[in-house]
Amino acid sequence: MRLTPTVIKCKAAVAWEAGKPLVIEEIEVAPPQANEVRVRILYTSLCHTDVYFWESKGQTLMFPRIYGHEAGGIVESVGEGVTCLQEGDHVLPIFTGECGECSHCKSEESNMCELLRINSDRGVMLSDGKSRFSKDGQPIYHFLGTSTFSEYTVIHFGCLAKINLAAPLDKVCVISCGLSAGLGATLNVAKPKKGQSVAVFGLGAVGLAAAEGARISGASRIIGVDMNASCFEQAKKFGCTEFVNPKDHEKPVQEMTDGGVDRALECTGSVRAMISAFECVHDGWGVAVLVGVPNKDDEFRTHPFKVLSERTLKGTFFGNYKPRTDIPGVVEQYMNKELEVEKFITHSVPFSEINKAFDLMLEGKSLRCIFSLDA
Amino acid sequence: MRLTPTVIKCKAAVAWEAGKPLVIEEIEVAPPQANEVRVRILYTSLCHTDVYFWESKGQTLMFPRIYGHEAGGIVESVGEGVTCLQEGDHVLPIFTGECGECSHCKSEESNMCELLRINSDRGVMLSDGKSRFSKDGQPIYHFLGTSTFSEYTVIHFGCLAKINLAAPLDKVCVISCGLSAGLGATLNVAKPKKGQSVAVFGLGAVGLAAAEGARISGASRIIGVDMNASCFEQAKKFGCTEFVNPKDHEKPVQEMTDGGVDRALECTGSVRAMISAFECVHDGWGVAVLVGVPNKDDEFRTHPFKVLSERTLKGTFFGNYKPRTDIPGVVEQYMNKELEVEKFITHSVPFSEINKAFDLMLEGKSLRCIFSLDA
Ligand SMILES: NC(=O)c1ccc[n+]([C@@H]2O[C@H](COP(=O)([O-])OP(=O)(O)OC[C@H]3O[C@@H](n4cnc5c(N)ncnc54)[C@H](O)[C@@H]3O)[C@@H](O)[C@H]2O)c1
Ligand SMILES: NC(=O)c1ccc[n+]([C@@H]2O[C@H](COP(=O)([O-])OP(=O)(O)OC[C@H]3O[C@@H](n4cnc5c(N)ncnc54)[C@H](O)[C@@H]3O)[C@@H](O)[C@H]2O)c1
Ligand SMILES: [Zn+2]
Ligand SMILES: [Zn+2]
Ligand SMILES: [Zn+2]
Ligand SMILES: [Zn+2]
Repeated sequence: MRLTPTVIKCKAAVAWEAGKPLVIEEIEVAPPQANEVRVRILYTSLCHTDVYFWESKGQTLMFPRIYGHEAGGIVESVGEGVTCLQEGDHVLPIFTGECGECSHCKSEESNMCELLRINSDRGVMLSDGKSRFSKDGQPIYHFLGTSTFSEYTVIHFGCLAKINLAAPLDKVCVISCGLSAGLGATLNVAKPKKGQSVAVFGLGAVGLAAAEGARISGASRIIGVDMNASCFEQAKKFGCTEFVNPKDHEKPVQEMTDGGVDRALECTGSVRAMISAFECVHDGWGVAVLVGVPNKDDEFRTHPFKVLSERTLKGTFFGNYKPRTDIPGVVEQYMNKELEVEKFITHSVPFSEINKAFDLMLEGKSLRCIFSLDA
Repeated sequence: MRLTPTVIKCKAAVAWEAGKPLVIEEIEVAPPQANEVRVRILYTSLCHTDVYFWESKGQTLMFPRIYGHEAGGIVESVGEGVTCLQEGDHVLPIFTGECGECSHCKSEESNMCELLRINSDRGVMLSDGKSRFSKDGQPIYHFLGTSTFSEYTVIHFGCLAKINLAAPLDKVCVISCGLSAGLGATLNVAKPKKGQSVAVFGLGAVGLAAAEGARISGASRIIGVDMNASCFEQAKKFGCTEFVNPKDHEKPVQEMTDGGVDRALECTGSVRAMISAFECVHDGWGVAVLVGVPNKDDEFRTHPFKVLSERTLKGTFFGNYKPRTDIPGVVEQYMNKELEVEKFITHSVPFSEINKAFDLMLEGKSLRCIFSLDA
């Protein structure tokens, strides 16, 4: 007979105030309720989205809070009604979920689950509107339904991808966010054919993952476009064959490609880059995919003739991967040595030095910095 | 042994001045040169594009000119190097061509042939920059490479679809322009799945052909959107199940469809309708296809989040049909009773009364008006 799970005391990195260093605290993690799973996190990494919400510039303040959404862990216990996971399963928490029941989950194309779609404003669990984290009786807010900067966390089963037990969690943890967003944008949405040319706008982790997708697809040319030339050297490892700094040219990609590139991936968040990415694809067959998250007031503008002349514009969220259905397969691509994950991991620090990772990211020095909670 | 073709004298409807009634004249039609075909036109119909260029508002004037681009005819003679067609073949002239050699023709997706793509500014043949039409020694300009308002015309072989000899030319002639543009926009580009919902913006001939495509695809709902409510009655014959006048509502299609329609076809030429068509498709999987020809200074504007939430925007030219490869198949769809062509033909007048057809179209009374040159 399985024991009823009880409250766990463990360490977590708590953000008490916007933009202030996290503090490693001993907290309490309540047992998982219906449809929830308590996960022991072994490795987690830092993503821009954590930093963005931690800075909380112009957002509703929600503190104290436990950030973190890229991670790998092991199921510790499951709540009522959870049948797809059990103690000991290896999982990647995903910031967006897959309920399996809604029109999006049932659609072959969409991964924007009605119930578990990303929600950065919700700091509590769905079922009862309460937090499972507390310190000395004070509740601590969740983040993106994952809150992986904690030795234990509670997550809706729909936000957990069950992966191969043989996959090294200290590597595959980075598959749970930015890497998949960029990779899937290329493999699932832009779908370049072997030998086609691909332009990638923005060479951060997401853009480099998009380039990795182009490399896997057998693209003949992978043109990296970034305003920061210092990232060009690193991008060569991700398959980029040519580079353009848009500051130096007016319409560089069109000039380099005789009428336009076959596929373009926008991974910057800049609306100017979005428009350039769309307008630089070839008429007749070019496809541009937007990945970057724009500002609230941005406007995408183009001449309708650019569309009429048979260009396609698409957008993607988490690379169109359905978290539970598709992410285990991405881990397999890594296991089969098709996908190279190690090159995304540029740093690792002990969990106790988590604030260093924030500094490295803010200084633009790291692609991905991993923390081990195992130590 | 085949006789060398000589000059033919025949009747044609000549436009001598912008916006002035056409005059039936006896003209001379020179023999086809290399890669050209001389065609005897049996039936031709009037399309908005003829009227638009005949009115020549704000365009470079090019008169005298022979308009007409929707037609059916029989090959009379072929020029040097033409091997795909011979005397007696039944053909539909197409305003855009398929050279078979360029990157667009070789692409599986594009139909925007580099060499023979629509060119409304060229009033002469490609090979020698001269006209094949003349009256009393004065050259008469060609139109869209087709000039079908003439008993005989000369056309590049790449702009002629060879069709089933059993197909009635007085019916299938309307397949050569607007009908295919709308039909292909749905069948080749929007590709609704059986049971999906489709919105069609603009219920002119092109929009009704898009609706016909939705009917053939087995769409469950076909929502017609037009500012002119008088076209709703007619649209029922084309499968439209519901109607909206955008003047009466703010976001009608979204409200009617619980989050958006699965596919939207814009067939108006109004940029406002283009934006509405894009924004009314469902997030996660919706596809909007632009067909209408916008004004030079129009700007397509939308919030990039509308794109990011997994909507697709596409444009099409002639319904993505490759004229020579695909149009014979559209004729077969008619022969198999899959495609209903008759309902597009609302009027027919003798060739001598061609100016009546211009009046009917300008008054919005006809969908397609056919002229017989056979009489
Ligand atoms: N759609 C999704 O599911 C999803 C998931 C994760 C991240 N994102 C978004 O993807 C984007 C990239 O994320 P990241 O972590 O790689 O960010 P990053 O900041 O590390 O990289 C962005 C890069 O874009 C470059 N850049 C900025 N403006 C540019 C311009 N106008 N032209 C060319 N280059 C420009 C920057 O120099 C930088 O190198 C962000 O907007 C992020 O929010 C989207
Ligand atoms: N892409 C192509 O290959 C191709 C080929 C042929 C025609 N076209 C274009 O397709 C469009 C339609 O052609 P048609 O012959 O059917 O024209 P049409 O004028 O007969 O029909 C257009 C319809 O749109 C309606 N309309 C206009 N503005 C609207 C708005 N804002 N909202 C809703 N309805 C609106 C009008 O009331 C009219 O009923 C034109 O722009 C034409 O140039 C494109
Ligand atoms: Zn769902
Ligand atoms: Zn992330
Ligand atoms: Zn061609
Ligand atoms: Zn036409």
